[in-house]
Amino acid sequence: MKKYLKLKLNLLENNPTQSMDLDKLFNPKSIAIVGASEEEGKVGNVIAKNILELGYQGEVFLVNPKHEELFGQKCYPSIIDIGKEIDIAIVAIPAKFVNAAISESAVAVKNFVVISAGFGETDAEGKKREEELAKITKEKNLNILGPNCLGFIIPELKLNASFAGGMPEAGNIALVSQSGALAVAIMDAAKNYDFKFSRIISIGNKMQIGETALMEYSDKDQKTKVIALYLEGVKNGKEFIKAASAISKPIVVLKAGKTEKSQKAISSHTGALAGSDEIMRAVFGKTGILRADNLEDFFDLITLISNIDFPRNNSVAVITNAGGPGVLTADAFNKKEIKLAEFGQEIKNKLKGFLPEESSVENPIDLLGDAREDRYEKALEIVGGQEGIGAVICVLTPQDQTPVDRIAEKIIEFKKKTNKVVLAVFIGGERIENAVGKFRANGVAHFLFPDRAVESLDKYYQWQNFHKARKSVISPELNADRREKAVKIIKNAKKQKRSALLFSEAGEIMGLYGIKVADSWDEKREIFVFPVVVKIDSDKVLHKTDKQGLILDIKDEKELSRALVQMKNNFPGEHIIIQPMLPRQTELIAGIKQDPVFGPVIVCGLGGIYTEIFKAVDFFIPPFDIPEIKNQLKKGALGFLFRETRGQKAYNLEEIALILSGLGDLAREIGEISELDINPILVYNDGKEAVAVDVKIII
Amino acid sequence: MKKYLKLKLNLLENNPTQSMDLDKLFNPKSIAIVGASEEEGKVGNVIAKNILELGYQGEVFLVNPKHEELFGQKCYPSIIDIGKEIDIAIVAIPAKFVNAAISESAVAVKNFVVISAGFGETDAEGKKREEELAKITKEKNLNILGPNCLGFIIPELKLNASFAGGMPEAGNIALVSQSGALAVAIMDAAKNYDFKFSRIISIGNKMQIGETALMEYSDKDQKTKVIALYLEGVKNGKEFIKAASAISKPIVVLKAGKTEKSQKAISSHTGALAGSDEIMRAVFGKTGILRADNLEDFFDLITLISNIDFPRNNSVAVITNAGGPGVLTADAFNKKEIKLAEFGQEIKNKLKGFLPEESSVENPIDLLGDAREDRYEKALEIVGGQEGIGAVICVLTPQDQTPVDRIAEKIIEFKKKTNKVVLAVFIGGERIENAVGKFRANGVAHFLFPDRAVESLDKYYQWQNFHKARKSVISPELNADRREKAVKIIKNAKKQKRSALLFSEAGEIMGLYGIKVADSWDEKREIFVFPVVVKIDSDKVLHKTDKQGLILDIKDEKELSRALVQMKNNFPGEHIIIQPMLPRQTELIAGIKQDPVFGPVIVCGLGGIYTEIFKAVDFFIPPFDIPEIKNQLKKGALGFLFRETRGQKAYNLEEIALILSGLGDLAREIGEISELDINPILVYNDGKEAVAVDVKIII
Repeated sequence: MKKYLKLKLNLLENNPTQSMDLDKLFNPKSIAIVGASEEEGKVGNVIAKNILELGYQGEVFLVNPKHEELFGQKCYPSIIDIGKEIDIAIVAIPAKFVNAAISESAVAVKNFVVISAGFGETDAEGKKREEELAKITKEKNLNILGPNCLGFIIPELKLNASFAGGMPEAGNIALVSQSGALAVAIMDAAKNYDFKFSRIISIGNKMQIGETALMEYSDKDQKTKVIALYLEGVKNGKEFIKAASAISKPIVVLKAGKTEKSQKAISSHTGALAGSDEIMRAVFGKTGILRADNLEDFFDLITLISNIDFPRNNSVAVITNAGGPGVLTADAFNKKEIKLAEFGQEIKNKLKGFLPEESSVENPIDLLGDAREDRYEKALEIVGGQEGIGAVICVLTPQDQTPVDRIAEKIIEFKKKTNKVVLAVFIGGERIENAVGKFRANGVAHFLFPDRAVESLDKYYQWQNFHKARKSVISPELNADRREKAVKIIKNAKKQKRSALLFSEAGEIMGLYGIKVADSWDEKREIFVFPVVVKIDSDKVLHKTDKQGLILDIKDEKELSRALVQMKNNFPGEHIIIQPMLPRQTELIAGIKQDPVFGPVIVCGLGGIYTEIFKAVDFFIPPFDIPEIKNQLKKGALGFLFRETRGQKAYNLEEIALILSGLGDLAREIGEISELDINPILVYNDGKEAVAVDVKIII
Repeated sequence: MKKYLKLKLNLLENNPTQSMDLDKLFNPKSIAIVGASEEEGKVGNVIAKNILELGYQGEVFLVNPKHEELFGQKCYPSIIDIGKEIDIAIVAIPAKFVNAAISESAVAVKNFVVISAGFGETDAEGKKREEELAKITKEKNLNILGPNCLGFIIPELKLNASFAGGMPEAGNIALVSQSGALAVAIMDAAKNYDFKFSRIISIGNKMQIGETALMEYSDKDQKTKVIALYLEGVKNGKEFIKAASAISKPIVVLKAGKTEKSQKAISSHTGALAGSDEIMRAVFGKTGILRADNLEDFFDLITLISNIDFPRNNSVAVITNAGGPGVLTADAFNKKEIKLAEFGQEIKNKLKGFLPEESSVENPIDLLGDAREDRYEKALEIVGGQEGIGAVICVLTPQDQTPVDRIAEKIIEFKKKTNKVVLAVFIGGERIENAVGKFRANGVAHFLFPDRAVESLDKYYQWQNFHKARKSVISPELNADRREKAVKIIKNAKKQKRSALLFSEAGEIMGLYGIKVADSWDEKREIFVFPVVVKIDSDKVLHKTDKQGLILDIKDEKELSRALVQMKNNFPGEHIIIQPMLPRQTELIAGIKQDPVFGPVIVCGLGGIYTEIFKAVDFFIPPFDIPEIKNQLKKGALGFLFRETRGQKAYNLEEIALILSGLGDLAREIGEISELDINPILVYNDGKEAVAVDVKIII
């Protein structure tokens, strides 16, 4: 019996598949282009030209039954006719022919890029076609990128296996995009934003190869420094979390679909399930993914991480030739983890040594409007000698007398010899253009505005801190005995055709998971300690306060009798309970929410009237261990509870972490629960034990 | 006596000066350049060349005692020697000669631009020099811009009366900058951001002409559509508020100095008083000034307002050729007042009529990646016919087959004939460059990122709403009788050498201003209604809870006796009061804070333990009337109190507005109070009256 239960428990958790072997797909020695064409405007024409004409050194085979020769080389009726094994096939033929073509050529090719649209993103027929393709993929053990994708580009191999034109510069950014159009826009913007790519991959419908496999692949790829993902949805939540948690490189995600309306736009556009934004936020927090707030933030984070090493600490020096922009840069540090460095007297004296009297030797260092390259050079040298400083931001406005280019050169020289992060913020237009070009050519990250530099650096610093502290979460063992007892209670309620558990039943389950519930008595009890509360306890009255199924603050026997009569009149035949009226200090709400992508998620927030006003709610995604919950609780919206503030002692972090841990175990062990809400849990900072006053379990 | 009091009351309020006549200063027919020079690198050289060589049509006189001729024209030893009245003089000579030069030439010139540095921004000597100059200015009835400024530029007159090079394009932006360097950077960035100026004015030390005078002047100036200010401090708070409240054009302010650290950077840089950021926010809220969050926001707001007319409503249609960027645009509407328009069936059918099946006819309208100009044109036409839509955002990514320029032309054509706001977001680099140039030439505001377009439009929409609803605030009349009574109480306390009022005294003053305070008794009272509270009431114990000067929830006579003994032991000889222990539902704190720039400010926030956590605090700047307070309360951090939410009835807006109004009157009438704190005010949503439980008045 126990063995069976354990098996069943394991099935409740998703078992991620092995990571895929994509080496051949992204480093092919030979390519077949199925649907190659000489006809202008056809996708098969663009792809063939991109592969043949942009410098790719591998073997290329053209496949098209209508032609014997294309682009001056032999053209085969099918892949089989080539008569040898080929690393990858790019498929750009009408959707209805795709499955047969892949199936038939699977003996010779294992890696396919399906450009063709007309699959799951369209109608029922397309969806069926995609299901069939998935089946073939599994049966024949294939790797498939797409369908309905742009293809991919590996600049280092001069391989553009896509129908987007051009060849971006080779570099260290792995871009994975669920929007082909956005990938094209990013390639076009590359020069302005200093993007250089290890690879660009369009995942289209991500029928098989999706964000998770590509994150894992990019993590191992030596050319990649930053993994940049544009996502509209996540396909397998558990796998995604497991992979992201294990990856050592920075992952920057731009996740579209923050609101219901934009999620609607997604589903009408790719059919992807966008997932709740709050839960995505929790996933990013759990895994240490850097979330880009918007497209600009995405651009800036990629530029920054692509160019700089970690800041060694959170102290930043700012050097400027303009007081105003200096102050604006200082403003940008508001509420950030990175800080303006405090300069000691020694450094101030050194700065005073060569700067005019009206300069400021505080941080930001104001070199004044007439500063030439020598002042920047000396200031950088002095700041560069300070171990306590992790990064330098060089701000400049192009005054008439400012030698912009020469100052840029000094900054580049400094960058080459320092162990500090160096960022440039040159504000202007024509006068700074040339300098910005120099920064790009020399790997100095440049930003148009001070805030963008500071915000990006701050996020990267936070990422680094998270990853330094990251330990692998020890997934708590599942407990079959406990599950068995809980399931018995649930089955019994189902037998009685109830959709919710009684408070006594819910309380018993809570007890199994270490959560204390309030006492509850029935009216036959002889002695009550007043004040008490009378409550309806029925699956027919779930929102008690809305429907007057709750009478508070009953002070004596007489009031109690009256309350019981009233309750019985209002809800004839329903179960009634009596509970002590407990002192209220802080109320929390907690529960389990089922997410279609990530499975059961634990929610915990501030209760009472402030719940909806301040939205102080956190989400926790199992499996987690106590250290992880504690860490997240401290960082999250409820963090204030665990700090001593004026007028408030700290609440017990351990106690609340244990409650959430219990809910996490419960969520993992009991799939039979569709919704669970504890509202309120009363918590105290005076030594009293936390207690769940009301528990609603929907089955 | 009453007359005297009234006079004194009037002196408590700042009496703004008359608005200045700056017509001659900014539209001069003749200019004298004092300190003109042919020596390269000298400020007087740059200014002379800027005025002589960039196309200015007025008369120019050069003044420099060392030369008889400069730039091939006669040079005068002094202004007086010119022998006629001159509209303005630009002064660029060493600081020590400036005051004498101005004083002596005041018979011939009334308007001066003092470029010279070495005044208030430097040392004691400089400060003294500036005071002297201020005296001369007043005595001789002069207008003075500066000192320590860059000068000004009027592109329409081809007049560059500054030492920054170049001539920006003429347009409708009036830029007033407290940082000359930033003004130069903005001029350089102008082409990239589509800035065209009615005037650029550097205000330097703003000894006399400051932001207020220039806002007023720009409001009257027909060429100006948007007034853009970069400020590090505000000089006369009351004048500033009065002027800003009366101005009908949009004012965009970038206010530097959000944090203490950045304020420190300001004071070391210009000596300006930066002012608390929270209070600046309240000032912007009160006057309807558009606050730019940072430099980028400043740029975007200026571009937007310079180019577009008001959106007629808050409904926005988005048209895109790329699903992903469409979703990102939809995301940007999160928590905005502008909304994605809901399309009716009719418009959807029209769109379906010409779009391929896979297109989306929801909003955003996805024209698909292969869209050419015809699809944009037709979609714009259909959307343009909808009265309910106020603005259209055209998003584009440059796919290989996208005719970017032709699409831009269709958008420009549409803009010319529609009454809707049209914004463009073309995402990319080289491929969109040309189209962006076309947008600029034709007054279509273009943004690099969807968020920037949506956020700027939203702010402008909010501004418009504010200004439509704006009524002039009726400043409540001051009440001399009331003041007399209150001042008597304060004088009495001062006579007794107390720095704070007793609760009974404070309560009496509260009563004069319509604020109800809790009962308070002394121990001689015979009957108490329990539970009660015992409190120390002394200027020596201001933080009662920190120092155990407060015993709560005393239930009977016995406990009361014990509490009184304990309190007398702890605070021998101090005054003790007994108050009823009132039921607590929601606690507010309220008070008066003295701001060095804006004078007394009323503060009101959520009390209890959540005060410091959620920082739900609003600031109100007198004078205000009841409608203004109500409006601000509803929009502000406490707004949730006045909305019915689940589990909470709305609180009485009128009641709390009256309390704040009382505090506003008090602050205006009684300058003798240095600090006032009511903590807590208990407020109820069940009909009970709000009551101030503790009132601390520091005198």
